[in-house]
Amino acid sequence: MRARAPASAANLGPGFDSLAVALRLHVEVEVTPAPSLTIRVEGEGDDLPVDGSHLAARVAVAAAGTDRLAVTVRSSIPVGRGLGSSAALAVAAAAAAGSDDPMAAGMAVDGHAENAAASVLGGLVGATIVQGRPVAVPLPFDPALTFVVLVPARPIATARARQALPAQVAHADAAFNLGRMGLLVAGLGDHRLLVRHATDDRLHQAARQSLFPEATHLMAGLLEAGAAAACWSGAGPSVLGICTSDTAPRVRAAGEQLLAVTTVGGRALLLEADREGLVVQDARPPV
Amino acid sequence: MRARAPASAANLGPGFDSLAVALRLHVEVEVTPAPSLTIRVEGEGDDLPVDGSHLAARVAVAAAGTDRLAVTVRSSIPVGRGLGSSAALAVAAAAAAGSDDPMAAGMAVDGHAENAAASVLGGLVGATIVQGRPVAVPLPFDPALTFVVLVPARPIATARARQALPAQVAHADAAFNLGRMGLLVAGLGDHRLLVRHATDDRLHQAARQSLFPEATHLMAGLLEAGAAAACWSGAGPSVLGICTSDTAPRVRAAGEQLLAVTTVGGRALLLEADREGLVVQDARPPV
Repeated sequence: MRARAPASAANLGPGFDSLAVALRLHVEVEVTPAPSLTIRVEGEGDDLPVDGSHLAARVAVAAAGTDRLAVTVRSSIPVGRGLGSSAALAVAAAAAAGSDDPMAAGMAVDGHAENAAASVLGGLVGATIVQGRPVAVPLPFDPALTFVVLVPARPIATARARQALPAQVAHADAAFNLGRMGLLVAGLGDHRLLVRHATDDRLHQAARQSLFPEATHLMAGLLEAGAAAACWSGAGPSVLGICTSDTAPRVRAAGEQLLAVTTVGGRALLLEADREGLVVQDARPPV
Repeated sequence: MRARAPASAANLGPGFDSLAVALRLHVEVEVTPAPSLTIRVEGEGDDLPVDGSHLAARVAVAAAGTDRLAVTVRSSIPVGRGLGSSAALAVAAAAAAGSDDPMAAGMAVDGHAENAAASVLGGLVGATIVQGRPVAVPLPFDPALTFVVLVPARPIATARARQALPAQVAHADAAFNLGRMGLLVAGLGDHRLLVRHATDDRLHQAARQSLFPEATHLMAGLLEAGAAAACWSGAGPSVLGICTSDTAPRVRAAGEQLLAVTTVGGRALLLEADREGLVVQDARPPV
């Protein structure tokens, strides 16, 4: 079977481990019976070790209950950039191997639910873990909104990004993020309500700043160019400008400039939200 | 002029200081020119001191810029029960005295925005404070939902409820509430998505438990009777069961029983969300 899952941007400022939006960048995984385990990777991530330890292989074997599989991965999702590549890959690999719960397979990658939920459901999702299981819900998303994604040339390891977080936070900071999240959910559901303070955050972006100090400058530049709001994508280093379609080309051009004049390097992508989520199809061509 | 504002239930579990829903219980304030300040109160709150120190008098005087006013308050909102009576009163008094920003007047009462925002906008709101000013947005609310409100006989002072909160919380608890808030916003927008874990909270309800230990038992009873979810209303002591219209009468009956068999006493109200918010009208009858 063959399955395709979208990338995703999690957190979106205040919604730490709780919000994500699927983006139109995809990974496709094909799993077919074979005499022994083989894995082939094309596109993004083809520089990673390609053997039985590869995430797609491990997830497919676990889902199929056998290692007599040929696993093929074709990915357009940059790896280690905060775009949910691992969750999308696990979701697609699990589905292509016949899993009936690809979201749980996606969650198992890093222990939180929102990237996997966005890769399965598409669109904007709220997601969390209840009694060890992912629980995810669709949230209204205004199709007038689109994303400029600055993808820096150098990755951040998610584990390092997690270690940067404090164990304790001020109660007022916890409340601060809740308040901003209310504004953000409303604004993503209706772009006329979206204000730039909706992506303010006090729980993770500042703590991760040392891992990617240029982020603040990049976000300010996106706002200056006309983005309605800006934030980190997941644990970074990618940075998002949330735009309407009329401002997005200008914001993207500004993003390219910003990456060029800083020493960051990388790409400025203009990505719509993916509304399909996980798509599974039998690999055989229609008769 | 005359103005009417609804009660509201804030927090709703995870949405501490960030979410509120307006409820169909109202306070009406009439403000007319007079030789000197007079204040008259009918209904709920008529046992409070009725003089120039009364909240409605202070707010009306500040809004009108004169104390030559006759202020009349007619309220159906129980006081000190976590139903936003002060914010609703301030909103209505400010509007009736000609204020062009009654939400700010409502926010000034206790320094947070969500009760005042619900009393002004009606429906479900996300609200917070940005640079000292209230910022509020409407959030989708499913009209299939209704509320059973258990209003205990004894009040809790909001100041005491605030003092019960810790200065620091675990980062994981802050993230926990964000995750639940995503579920809650989706579920209040579409009752088919509402799960009881959507009102889970780790930021205020447990800390306030000692002020009203019966709350946990009451919430469990509402759930058992068929409420989709249950939570404190604001800082308590009122407790909400979030219901669909088919379950609400049964949940209300169970709530009355619960109040009777515990030593709490009080009323079980069945209240729909108020969708009008603040209504201002000239006091003169139409010609």
